[in-house]
Amino acid sequence: MTVPSLESVRAAAARLEGVAVRTPLLWSPELSDEVGASVRLKCESLQRCGAFKLRGSYNFISRLSDEDVARGVITYSSGNHAQGVALAARIRGVRAVVVMPTTAPAVKHRGAARLGAEVVFEGTTSVERRARAEEIAAAEGLVIVPPFDHPHIISGQGTVGLEIAADWPEVDTAIVPIGGGGLAAGTAVALRALRPGMRIIGVEPEGAPSMRAALDAGRVVRIDRIDTIADGLAPVQVGDLTYALVRDLVDEVVLVSDDAIREAAVFLLERAKLVAEFSGAATVAALRSGAAGSGDLVAAVISGGNADVAALVACAGSPAKVPD
Amino acid sequence: MTVPSLESVRAAAARLEGVAVRTPLLWSPELSDEVGASVRLKCESLQRCGAFKLRGSYNFISRLSDEDVARGVITYSSGNHAQGVALAARIRGVRAVVVMPTTAPAVKHRGAARLGAEVVFEGTTSVERRARAEEIAAAEGLVIVPPFDHPHIISGQGTVGLEIAADWPEVDTAIVPIGGGGLAAGTAVALRALRPGMRIIGVEPEGAPSMRAALDAGRVVRIDRIDTIADGLAPVQVGDLTYALVRDLVDEVVLVSDDAIREAAVFLLERAKLVAEFSGAATVAALRSGAAGSGDLVAAVISGGNADVAALVACAGSPAKVPD
Repeated sequence: MTVPSLESVRAAAARLEGVAVRTPLLWSPELSDEVGASVRLKCESLQRCGAFKLRGSYNFISRLSDEDVARGVITYSSGNHAQGVALAARIRGVRAVVVMPTTAPAVKHRGAARLGAEVVFEGTTSVERRARAEEIAAAEGLVIVPPFDHPHIISGQGTVGLEIAADWPEVDTAIVPIGGGGLAAGTAVALRALRPGMRIIGVEPEGAPSMRAALDAGRVVRIDRIDTIADGLAPVQVGDLTYALVRDLVDEVVLVSDDAIREAAVFLLERAKLVAEFSGAATVAALRSGAAGSGDLVAAVISGGNADVAALVACAGSPAKVPD
Repeated sequence: MTVPSLESVRAAAARLEGVAVRTPLLWSPELSDEVGASVRLKCESLQRCGAFKLRGSYNFISRLSDEDVARGVITYSSGNHAQGVALAARIRGVRAVVVMPTTAPAVKHRGAARLGAEVVFEGTTSVERRARAEEIAAAEGLVIVPPFDHPHIISGQGTVGLEIAADWPEVDTAIVPIGGGGLAAGTAVALRALRPGMRIIGVEPEGAPSMRAALDAGRVVRIDRIDTIADGLAPVQVGDLTYALVRDLVDEVVLVSDDAIREAAVFLLERAKLVAEFSGAATVAALRSGAAGSGDLVAAVISGGNADVAALVACAGSPAKVPD
């Protein structure tokens, strides 16, 4: 239970071999032309379960003792972490319970159920579902798999950074979305160690700036009101460990509007032929809106693809309205 | 103007460096589980212009003499080759005219126009648009860029095979869609040379079996009636050179139904998070329907992603109807 390090991320990568997909770091000539930089997309939308979350949850669950495996696990999640835990538990042969918001998109709660997890719905905020999960864990003796604020989770997510550095040694900028901060913290741990001089940018929705608020306050704070379409980036507060790592390792946390996120998701669908959920498109929104500033060789993490595609198509308008 | 060979494919790969995207060969655990093999998807849907076509058209256009560059080029295409020619011409600074069917999906003709090509609409069949292109070429002195039946085109498309072999040395089966046969012929040239013992399977829609008909007849024949949703796999006849190469190098050409193609495209959209057009999903349809037979380490080429996503979503039914 030490602080995540390049070594713990490398150990996670070894555990994930043959379990997680080695996702592509895909050159996007169109986006590159548009923003005047060489842009590559780290497509975690193409990861198993459609998001990066398997990396952390499998790293956590693969390290459970046999005794804990016999007890089973529980987690709380807006959806993607639940699916990651469900799959990791299935691989290890562990009972899994997941507490999800009543508003979780069908693609996410069905995904968890399909993987054999017992799905419990509770409230709409991360606070409510966490409380319920703790209740059930105490009653049934389950091990809690935290969604982001744990060294094993952060180290697992950090393998995204490891792969970016390996696939593109020259990379000078990385852009990573921030929800609870696990992906950003882990990726920054790996990239800061391997490429000390590079720029690492975190991205949050304007309507859920929990990391930005923590950085401004100098401590983790709870956001009163969450208002964003990016359901995966909407916890009311970040973690203590993720906060400390982002504060120390990430250069800047920038905000993007829901409109910019929507447009980025439509761009990815229509032009890049990738299904990205709104949370996953936030980094592209930061690039296209200018919020992420400049860079020459930019890796942007598309964190997930569990979108309601019909809703995305509706954002795009009818085919006749697609701008030329 | 010799027959395509491993050498001509390698030369094409060198020309395409920094021009075409090195597309991922993406492990699909879900599809692997479903069909009982290790399946990787060669995602040409993620290629520039959303399909493999840039490979062949750029290889052709980059080899034009300065005199021909001054004349300009023309092509005829159901859509994807038109976009490939348009982009290749823009890169080389050549005037491009493309003749497309009146039924071409908006995503395809708008794509060509956006890239600066002059779009001419003519009829609905490959025969009609070819005749019109030859007419315009004669009148305006343009160089015709054939859609498939030319060594430079075939060698360019063959770089797909080169990349599959490089990225997965152990691959034992490749599944490639067949329209005019350029992709299948080129891929087979590369793979047969590099992996002599592997299985190479071509896939056509039941409603457009132009290569199957040619193989059965022992010569290129014209199909009387084309009836398929896979608009990219629907020429009324294959090429002389593509026919000869497929006959000599491809093990088997199998057929898939439009229903299987539709289901495969929905699977790719919902589960693999990839936008694939119907033509691009044909190989996955062949795998899932059992038409492609067995294999242990299977590379399936997703040839393009220029789909009308709203139509794909309509195929999937309302979100509530997605099976669990």
